[in-house]
Amino acid sequence: MGHRFGDPSNPLLVSVRSGARKSMPGMMETVLNVGLTKDTISGLIKLTGNERLVYDAYRRLIMMYSDVVMEKARGQIEPEEGLGIRRQLEEIMDEVKKEKGCKNDTDLNVDDLKRLCGLFKERVKNVLKKPFPDDADEQLWGGIGAVFASWNGKRAIAYRRIEGIADEWGTAVNVQAMVFGNMGETSATGVAFTRDPGNGENKFYGEYLVNAQGEDVVAGIRTPGPINKESSSEHNKTLKTLEEIMPKVYRELFGYQKKLENHYKDMQDIEFTRENGRLFMLQCRIGKRNGPAAVRIAVDMVKEKLITKEMAVMRVTPAQLDELLHPMIDPKAERELKPIAKGLPAGPGGGVGMAVFTADDAEKWAKEGSKVILVREETSPEDVHGMHSSQGILTAKGGMTSHAALVARGWGKCCIVGSSSIHIDEENRRFTAGDTVVKEGDWISLNGTKGNIYSGKLPLVEPDIEHDKYFKGFMKVCDDVRRLRIRTNADRPEDAAIARRFGAEGIGLCRTEHMFFDPARIKSMRKMIVADTKGDREKALGELLPYQKEDFAGILKAMEGLPVIIRLLDPPLHEFLPQEESKKKELAEELGISIEKLEARMQKLHELNPMLGLRGCRLGITYPEITEMQVQAVFEAAAELTLTGVKVFPEVMVPLLGSQAEMKNQYVIIKARLEEVQKRYKVKFHCMIGTMIEIPRAALVADSIAEIAEFFSYGTNDLTQMTFGFSRDDIGSFLPNYLEKGILPKDPFQSIDRDGVGKLISIGIERGRSTRPNLEIGICGEHGGDPDSIKFCHSVGMDYVSCSPYRVPIARLAAAQAVVESKK
Amino acid sequence: MGHRFGDPSNPLLVSVRSGARKSMPGMMETVLNVGLTKDTISGLIKLTGNERLVYDAYRRLIMMYSDVVMEKARGQIEPEEGLGIRRQLEEIMDEVKKEKGCKNDTDLNVDDLKRLCGLFKERVKNVLKKPFPDDADEQLWGGIGAVFASWNGKRAIAYRRIEGIADEWGTAVNVQAMVFGNMGETSATGVAFTRDPGNGENKFYGEYLVNAQGEDVVAGIRTPGPINKESSSEHNKTLKTLEEIMPKVYRELFGYQKKLENHYKDMQDIEFTRENGRLFMLQCRIGKRNGPAAVRIAVDMVKEKLITKEMAVMRVTPAQLDELLHPMIDPKAERELKPIAKGLPAGPGGGVGMAVFTADDAEKWAKEGSKVILVREETSPEDVHGMHSSQGILTAKGGMTSHAALVARGWGKCCIVGSSSIHIDEENRRFTAGDTVVKEGDWISLNGTKGNIYSGKLPLVEPDIEHDKYFKGFMKVCDDVRRLRIRTNADRPEDAAIARRFGAEGIGLCRTEHMFFDPARIKSMRKMIVADTKGDREKALGELLPYQKEDFAGILKAMEGLPVIIRLLDPPLHEFLPQEESKKKELAEELGISIEKLEARMQKLHELNPMLGLRGCRLGITYPEITEMQVQAVFEAAAELTLTGVKVFPEVMVPLLGSQAEMKNQYVIIKARLEEVQKRYKVKFHCMIGTMIEIPRAALVADSIAEIAEFFSYGTNDLTQMTFGFSRDDIGSFLPNYLEKGILPKDPFQSIDRDGVGKLISIGIERGRSTRPNLEIGICGEHGGDPDSIKFCHSVGMDYVSCSPYRVPIARLAAAQAVVESKK
Repeated sequence: MGHRFGDPSNPLLVSVRSGARKSMPGMMETVLNVGLTKDTISGLIKLTGNERLVYDAYRRLIMMYSDVVMEKARGQIEPEEGLGIRRQLEEIMDEVKKEKGCKNDTDLNVDDLKRLCGLFKERVKNVLKKPFPDDADEQLWGGIGAVFASWNGKRAIAYRRIEGIADEWGTAVNVQAMVFGNMGETSATGVAFTRDPGNGENKFYGEYLVNAQGEDVVAGIRTPGPINKESSSEHNKTLKTLEEIMPKVYRELFGYQKKLENHYKDMQDIEFTRENGRLFMLQCRIGKRNGPAAVRIAVDMVKEKLITKEMAVMRVTPAQLDELLHPMIDPKAERELKPIAKGLPAGPGGGVGMAVFTADDAEKWAKEGSKVILVREETSPEDVHGMHSSQGILTAKGGMTSHAALVARGWGKCCIVGSSSIHIDEENRRFTAGDTVVKEGDWISLNGTKGNIYSGKLPLVEPDIEHDKYFKGFMKVCDDVRRLRIRTNADRPEDAAIARRFGAEGIGLCRTEHMFFDPARIKSMRKMIVADTKGDREKALGELLPYQKEDFAGILKAMEGLPVIIRLLDPPLHEFLPQEESKKKELAEELGISIEKLEARMQKLHELNPMLGLRGCRLGITYPEITEMQVQAVFEAAAELTLTGVKVFPEVMVPLLGSQAEMKNQYVIIKARLEEVQKRYKVKFHCMIGTMIEIPRAALVADSIAEIAEFFSYGTNDLTQMTFGFSRDDIGSFLPNYLEKGILPKDPFQSIDRDGVGKLISIGIERGRSTRPNLEIGICGEHGGDPDSIKFCHSVGMDYVSCSPYRVPIARLAAAQAVVESKK
Repeated sequence: MGHRFGDPSNPLLVSVRSGARKSMPGMMETVLNVGLTKDTISGLIKLTGNERLVYDAYRRLIMMYSDVVMEKARGQIEPEEGLGIRRQLEEIMDEVKKEKGCKNDTDLNVDDLKRLCGLFKERVKNVLKKPFPDDADEQLWGGIGAVFASWNGKRAIAYRRIEGIADEWGTAVNVQAMVFGNMGETSATGVAFTRDPGNGENKFYGEYLVNAQGEDVVAGIRTPGPINKESSSEHNKTLKTLEEIMPKVYRELFGYQKKLENHYKDMQDIEFTRENGRLFMLQCRIGKRNGPAAVRIAVDMVKEKLITKEMAVMRVTPAQLDELLHPMIDPKAERELKPIAKGLPAGPGGGVGMAVFTADDAEKWAKEGSKVILVREETSPEDVHGMHSSQGILTAKGGMTSHAALVARGWGKCCIVGSSSIHIDEENRRFTAGDTVVKEGDWISLNGTKGNIYSGKLPLVEPDIEHDKYFKGFMKVCDDVRRLRIRTNADRPEDAAIARRFGAEGIGLCRTEHMFFDPARIKSMRKMIVADTKGDREKALGELLPYQKEDFAGILKAMEGLPVIIRLLDPPLHEFLPQEESKKKELAEELGISIEKLEARMQKLHELNPMLGLRGCRLGITYPEITEMQVQAVFEAAAELTLTGVKVFPEVMVPLLGSQAEMKNQYVIIKARLEEVQKRYKVKFHCMIGTMIEIPRAALVADSIAEIAEFFSYGTNDLTQMTFGFSRDDIGSFLPNYLEKGILPKDPFQSIDRDGVGKLISIGIERGRSTRPNLEIGICGEHGGDPDSIKFCHSVGMDYVSCSPYRVPIARLAAAQAVVESKK
């Protein structure tokens, strides 16, 4: 620049900025105009011939420096609103402006600014008990220290938590020569993006201010103008564009931005300043963008051959892709309001409806055409019909893997759980949240992506991904890159169809137990459970057979040509029995037995730790007739479809296995029934018989299990429970404390614990393939929809992941990213 | 022998006998006198000049052959009592004897025997629809086939189950020349042991019969005489000894038996026959013996330098050693009776007392001087005082690792659990078992070693191992051989003292929770649990501190000079709260809170799967003040003892750990308190801080845990629960079926599952020692007292096993056997 820092006759001013590996816009501190002292002020005035510029710079330096260096960095970080030194200096400046009748900062003249600097220094000394330093070196080192210190500021830490940036990275500090956009009407400053960060359109997009420093653009003291017609909006369309008033500068800038984007091969966020006639580029960094923009930019850049497909898949985060998939509460409407309560964001998207407090009401109201939100303490399988009828689900209890959360995510339904600040009064059909009382029928709105609850009826914005060419194009790019196949967890043909539209390549988990909760079937199910003899049990199972067959036919047809893994009955039988006294009485009457007998039978089924009791394959081994009925239903459905020309690929999965002997026991039963049905129908269809690996022992003895099982599917929910010794239902009493104290880095039910559970998974894969090299291995726990976990599944060599229908696109993306990351 | 098989003029007769690897006395079939046909009969008569002998042999052949070969081996195995061919032939013989007025078989003359043979053959043909074969070869091959077939006879299979003999071993068949002890008054036959199998005394011990075949000695048709004075008993003391009537034969025999024992280096069970003047040794095999005999023989043979110490430890099975440790129901009294019911043998030994049906009654009656047996559906920690007051415990529910079983074994108390055929009517204070009704106060007797329940008061036989020089000598031999150290699980100074007398080298597990059930303390414990604030909790903990300190002082003193591992509070808090309404009310009053508040707090503590909930170190992390109080009590006790000159080695163990972070959290708390106490008391004592490995994840990340933990103790009860996904409390619904179907080879809670749990243990040891090579590793689960599991612990390189006090001698033996077996 031809100047020297601290030289009284030819002074250089510098800015001190952060330089983190990943941009954290607005989260780190900056100090501008460093180097102005009594001595250099006069030198700079002589040099620039612009006294006003110099005092404007000096008052800016005092404001920023006293705030960032003298106050925050000295441990008085983030004082209460309105009490900080900066706020006090701003008030002084507002007073002076008011006194002078000025509207804009630029209206203040040199004398005003000189007076202001004096007032500022006096206040700083009074409040911070230290004079503003009049030494260039002291200013510089102070600034450097403060920028480093701001890495550990509250805001920066919070931002890193959200963005997953490691604390250990730290920041660089950049010391950069100052240039002045505030040197008069031939000077200007601005920020711009090389593409539109709001929708990804390939247009140069930005704002500028004449006679200003960069911070003025961000601060919004004056309304900045659009740099070109493409950038103009409602907000600024009356203002002249940079292209109009400084066409030469604009053309030069336009050239630079193209060059920068081509160099960095990504959309750039740039800062520029014109000092008198000369254009300076101050900064450029990867530009932040929202989900739709990220997708469009990635797809366009591949088309433009600017980036490869592998680079493209890294340009969209799973969270950004998720933005495209759910109807959202209109962000504009939401911006105006304060939530009445918050909870855990268990099912993304928006839900708007009238509050109801029982599942039966939800179903009834919905049938009558009302939109409802089901509000419950927590949900149980008996609530499922009501949950399905609702626009969204809100619970006061439960975590991210509670019943409500699991069911809602499976359906892509908006859901907020564990909102502990709402108090439900079910009897009087209302809940309170702070001062707000929400009665039955009152409208409420849920933002399930953020966990915010609003009273009233907020507008929704619907996604239309099926006609979104960028979404589809991006998915194609992901598919070209990924190795993992993506299946879905779906229990009903409707869900299977949705998942297929989202790109699912099969069903990784079809649970058969949800099918039994239908009122028409639950009676037979309950009869089966309370049966005293094998004969009675078989009779009740016989009643269930046609229903099961119909279910399987529906789902196999919806997935024509693709594999469908059907899991045999898994949950403990008591889950199917009613809890309420009235329902028990009803059941006893229906079954024609005494209430005492029913209760005795229920008592017998009671378990101290039901998760580790009679469930999974232990049911099918203890009562082989259950397995027989279920596989007969699967195979008859498959046979009949095959006869009508539908290609089906059922796979039967034995749950909760811990040993080869269990696998053998069930395999023999299944295989016999398969051969019997194929012989009876005179058809052939392919059917693999495999197992879930969800008990630690199963992973440890996987070699012997794989001698019989033809596929493995990791049930990571249960595997995590048993590997940690955590009951998902009961960890509420200590998990929050564990996360807060950092004893657990994250909830292991949300993202696979690589060190423990992951090790067990690796052992199981290695041992399983040691005896059956072509063993098909996948995952069907909740983790199958978690990007980090999907990357883990790729790294250990699984064949597929299976997730809920609405997570399929996310999984396709994560699987593609896994390929790229594993090459690094 | 100079004869030829089937040669009419010079015939050889043979016996066909089994030859299994391990002797199965009486369980396999034998056929004697094979080769007698019309042709060879006359030849043999000519050869021996003894027609009576030949027809006696012939009738024996027909009896045995028709039974063993023609009936049993042809699938009509083990016919109903009284219907078999043998029984029918015996009846014919009895009739003939009656007719002739004979008392003994030997009183029948040649004609009688000839007639008998005719009658026998006729009956055989009529009943078995096949004539008795008159062909020597056919007889031989028939016999060989039948002996092979008897390997799969019901008796043989049952015996193998009990003795742990593998089905795959199979048997050899020996074809051996016949000699005849029934050739007249100069012939004889007998069986003998080289030492007394009843007490191990080094004396030649046996019985003989003149003019008889070996089977007659066993069958007890005539009373055999003692071979020498040392062998005479009440039973046969009036009879002449072999030594007296055939002194030369006896001397020859005596020489042989010494030679055989010296050759085989073990006590021999021999069969001999004198045919006219010549002595034949028919068979010798390792002699069966009872526990005391096994121990004495082993010790004596080491002293005699016949065997090494390593050989000696293999000569006593853990079950035999166990016989020495418990008061037993007098076997003579038991032999006369049929049990009224059976159950699982959970606590060995005998227990005799009056039936009571509540723990309070048990305690009350016992205080009044009565001996009682506590009879419960199942027991809970609230019953412990009553269990302790009882002579034995009987439950209708529960398995080998139920609460009752664990507590009883810990105290060496007789216990039978899961006796499903008894029906308890607690209200009317009685139970029924079949037709027997046992009312409160009625005497019953339990054989806890076998699981038999008798009505009435049976006599007990008490062991006195402290003055048993053979027991002590044998233990010394074991100690010389073993590498594993043996500790004990003991919660009270009394138990610690018992264990020490049994040879325990420290305490491997001192559970602190049992201490809280004392009525004087439970109130403070409950106050702590229902406390709303940290302050209230600390106050209640403060009340517990002196009790805990006293407990620890007692146990540290009892174990002076030896390490004592104290485990921090482990069980879920709700276990300490009362279950009954009346007790709840009482508690609420005592605590001065409303019953509603109490119930609300209890409801909050309720968990769906308490085994996987808030317990173990999760308690100490959530409420650090609990850990602080406990370790303060330990360290103050240790400091005060040290000041009085008692050498103490406390070790603090953190339970239910799954990660390094948990270990770190507790380590910091414990270490700080240790330093504080040592500084305050101005003493130094050594204290390791370590953890239990009982969660699968802990084994998988053992390398990182061992960076902090100074010792590992495997809690194989919980580790087995979580590795299998089995809740011990709930497996009753499927475990019996699993064992019956062979899906599980054995109950994994009794003996370590080497394939699954064992693999995890190995992984944990390997990883743990990878970061801390001198890591002390032991086991403190119930498996620590199981000989097979102890051998596993040796093989994977553990430093010690810890078991209940009464299992310590068994563990010392098993540890020694492990050394020998691992060298093979």
